[in-house]
Amino acid sequence: MEVIMFFKLLETLDKKFGIEQAKAHCDVPCGIYDPIVAQINALTVVRMMDLMAALEGEGVAFDNSISRYIAVKEEHAEKAKHEIRVIFGDFIKDAHIAQYPELPGLFHKIMQLGSKVRQTADREAGLAFVEAVNAFAKIFWAIKGVGTKVAKAPYAPALEMIYPDL
Amino acid sequence: MEVIMFFKLLETLDKKFGIEQAKAHCDVPCGIYDPIVAQINALTVVRMMDLMAALEGEGVAFDNSISRYIAVKEEHAEKAKHEIRVIFGDFIKDAHIAQYPELPGLFHKIMQLGSKVRQTADREAGLAFVEAVNAFAKIFWAIKGVGTKVAKAPYAPALEMIYPDL
Amino acid sequence: MEVIMFFKLLETLDKKFGIEQAKAHCDVPCGIYDPIVAQINALTVVRMMDLMAALEGEGVAFDNSISRYIAVKEEHAEKAKHEIRVIFGDFIKDAHIAQYPELPGLFHKIMQLGSKVRQTADREAGLAFVEAVNAFAKIFWAIKGVGTKVAKAPYAPALEMIYPDL
Amino acid sequence: MEVIMFFKLLETLDKKFGIEQAKAHCDVPCGIYDPIVAQINALTVVRMMDLMAALEGEGVAFDNSISRYIAVKEEHAEKAKHEIRVIFGDFIKDAHIAQYPELPGLFHKIMQLGSKVRQTADREAGLAFVEAVNAFAKIFWAIKGVGTKVAKAPYAPALEMIYPDL
Amino acid sequence: MEVIMFFKLLETLDKKFGIEQAKAHCDVPCGIYDPIVAQINALTVVRMMDLMAALEGEGVAFDNSISRYIAVKEEHAEKAKHEIRVIFGDFIKDAHIAQYPELPGLFHKIMQLGSKVRQTADREAGLAFVEAVNAFAKIFWAIKGVGTKVAKAPYAPALEMIYPDL
Amino acid sequence: MEVIMFFKLLETLDKKFGIEQAKAHCDVPCGIYDPIVAQINALTVVRMMDLMAALEGEGVAFDNSISRYIAVKEEHAEKAKHEIRVIFGDFIKDAHIAQYPELPGLFHKIMQLGSKVRQTADREAGLAFVEAVNAFAKIFWAIKGVGTKVAKAPYAPALEMIYPDL
Repeated sequence: MEVIMFFKLLETLDKKFGIEQAKAHCDVPCGIYDPIVAQINALTVVRMMDLMAALEGEGVAFDNSISRYIAVKEEHAEKAKHEIRVIFGDFIKDAHIAQYPELPGLFHKIMQLGSKVRQTADREAGLAFVEAVNAFAKIFWAIKGVGTKVAKAPYAPALEMIYPDL
Repeated sequence: MEVIMFFKLLETLDKKFGIEQAKAHCDVPCGIYDPIVAQINALTVVRMMDLMAALEGEGVAFDNSISRYIAVKEEHAEKAKHEIRVIFGDFIKDAHIAQYPELPGLFHKIMQLGSKVRQTADREAGLAFVEAVNAFAKIFWAIKGVGTKVAKAPYAPALEMIYPDL
Repeated sequence: MEVIMFFKLLETLDKKFGIEQAKAHCDVPCGIYDPIVAQINALTVVRMMDLMAALEGEGVAFDNSISRYIAVKEEHAEKAKHEIRVIFGDFIKDAHIAQYPELPGLFHKIMQLGSKVRQTADREAGLAFVEAVNAFAKIFWAIKGVGTKVAKAPYAPALEMIYPDL
Repeated sequence: MEVIMFFKLLETLDKKFGIEQAKAHCDVPCGIYDPIVAQINALTVVRMMDLMAALEGEGVAFDNSISRYIAVKEEHAEKAKHEIRVIFGDFIKDAHIAQYPELPGLFHKIMQLGSKVRQTADREAGLAFVEAVNAFAKIFWAIKGVGTKVAKAPYAPALEMIYPDL
Repeated sequence: MEVIMFFKLLETLDKKFGIEQAKAHCDVPCGIYDPIVAQINALTVVRMMDLMAALEGEGVAFDNSISRYIAVKEEHAEKAKHEIRVIFGDFIKDAHIAQYPELPGLFHKIMQLGSKVRQTADREAGLAFVEAVNAFAKIFWAIKGVGTKVAKAPYAPALEMIYPDL
Repeated sequence: MEVIMFFKLLETLDKKFGIEQAKAHCDVPCGIYDPIVAQINALTVVRMMDLMAALEGEGVAFDNSISRYIAVKEEHAEKAKHEIRVIFGDFIKDAHIAQYPELPGLFHKIMQLGSKVRQTADREAGLAFVEAVNAFAKIFWAIKGVGTKVAKAPYAPALEMIYPDL
């Protein structure tokens, strides 16, 4: 019941805003979308958490390093969120969402996790962030008709990542 | 049927990613969210379209102005999208989406319109963009428990905007 | 005496730089100016000061939060200053300054307070910053011929703000 | 008469905002201020105007170059304005303004010219912009107690610039 | 002869600046370096050139699109250069240069090509840019001890790219 | 022997990438290059190190200041690196490198020192960074045919700097 209402609303918005369903699959003028940038940024967040946890010492040297790790964590979490937003907003059409109805929820989850990894240095949140971004990458490549494989990233923290099978 | 699957998926994601429903209403540590920034940016997009349409002349002076209007349109469309993403990603919780199920679709529409107003100088798209951002603002204030009113913006193009009734 | 010299100097500069008084009231090509963006940014500065003062704990979690609050405070103080500079530099003409001779002093004060709230976590300076930006907003709306009202901001720290009475 | 009112207002603001006159000469914690950055940026604005005026041809190659010159002009005009704002807001104290009462007017003029050189490709405005920034530099060095000299910039458009006499 | 002088100079600089050769292989504290970001950005430059060449029409719609393509081209060429600079400056040590003496020349070439693709819409320069960035990626992965393969990019212009063989 | 190989490689790259030696001296379309911006940024790095070393106290006020000094140090080190990269990549041609074969090594050293001064608060590294940037400035002005002089910077830490003798 609610599903029907939901699509009715989308339809109404479509009519009102004049974006036809016919354009849903249209890739032009599309840029070059690649979730790997978001994936690398998410991985960097975990890397920074690891460096933060391992940091020892005190005084100005400690402050200098911890400040930088936090700032790098902030920046990369934000970049990951931005990249996913661009793909979700520009590449993903209504027809893709119809095909992968988990996409809006996954997108929202990535945004929330992207904030959580900024607010904390909690490695579990970092891993969940990487996992969610990987899940998004997997759907993205499926939409593109490109197969994927799982492989360890060739740099610490060497987590398992989704890569296109080129 | 699909709705149930959709919420099951969210639940599974929640369990996996360790973000409890209990935190859904939690505003802490929240920043200061205000959709007016996105609304002003969206309005600026229409303003630039109007200036582009009205521009006359030729040569370097024309090139200089048209280039600037396009660049300002780009920048403000992007800022509007960014602001809405921050509110949607950081302020809006799963419980809000349960209450306003149109939110993910509206968010996605704003992202799409935000790209359309960059790709074109189509005033209708500009108006739809402002309208969608206003619709988002209305839901935002409702969630905050703040009433809203409609008033004309005190600057060209003086479109009707949603304002909190303070 | 000094006032006369001051306006003579402005006049000389005007003649030299070829910007006629006749253009003083000219709003074209003006963008969309709205001090609310600066006001929200100034308010965020106080919010961050409050979060900083309330923060407890120690270790990496503490470092992570305090670093982020300081960085957000920096960023928003700078944005507030930038927004006020744009309005002061682009919207405010010599004729407005003749009408509101306190404007240059107020502008300078906002810049100074904007630096002070970056250099310290002193809430009094934060409040003064918000107050000065509000004072600027009041004059801005008066120049636009739009009445203003005072209302509490609908988010913490809920300070009294100047809003246009639309 | 008005001058007295003006300083009364500043005094009142001072008392209200708790910034003592005693701090007026205080340079700590000052960063490193140097107007040369603004001067180079202003000079670049004129350089871009010259390149725009000299550009020939048509089609995509022309569009590519003219677009870039305009964008570089925009960016450098904005940087010049930003640098001057930082010096005016952070380095210049009330006591300096008392000593050089033309400073607020000169600052405002630089902001206005900085906008004019963005809005047009008018070389006269560009020259006035450079001249005003140079005038600011001269006062800045006088405040610092460093003598200045006039020399041609060692790059096109090789305008006469104010340099500290080190 | 000159080679000997060159390394003598490097040695002298090393002694003077206190960076021991012993640190040359040191990866800590390294971030996560991956040339794929630069490669995607370089590819985007060619994509924009293709869109520019294919663009038809006239008037505001044409101006809007051509302006955006040029701006995107600018931005991505700059990002590619920045990414390569970070890897070259932070990851590549003197010992790597001793092993791959073509690295400084290749780096310089990438910077020059990165400027050429901004100054023109010449597709040959775009292809050379992609090729040079790919050559850099190949050396990077060899230093990391990771094998590489050649595959077509999964998006237009679908040029052959160097990928790590994970 | 290696030198010959090195230039052969450059030649091969040149042929492959279609950039003729004939263009090596070409300054058009050159912007306005001036190493003083990098020099001021490098000096600011040392200034921040001095402020960090001198900072006393504890608690939020200490955190606020130390965080800001570190962030300013980061930003200015990055700006210095960026400015030098622009000059090295856009202004310096192959013929200049043939004339000053130490340039690539010096550039690489500046990048490494620029990272070291971010990673640490080590004043020796800061001084080496300023010195290396000054060395680059000296070669730059020699290429331009402009004589240089050594003078103390007119602001703390008042290090000896290379200035063009205008």
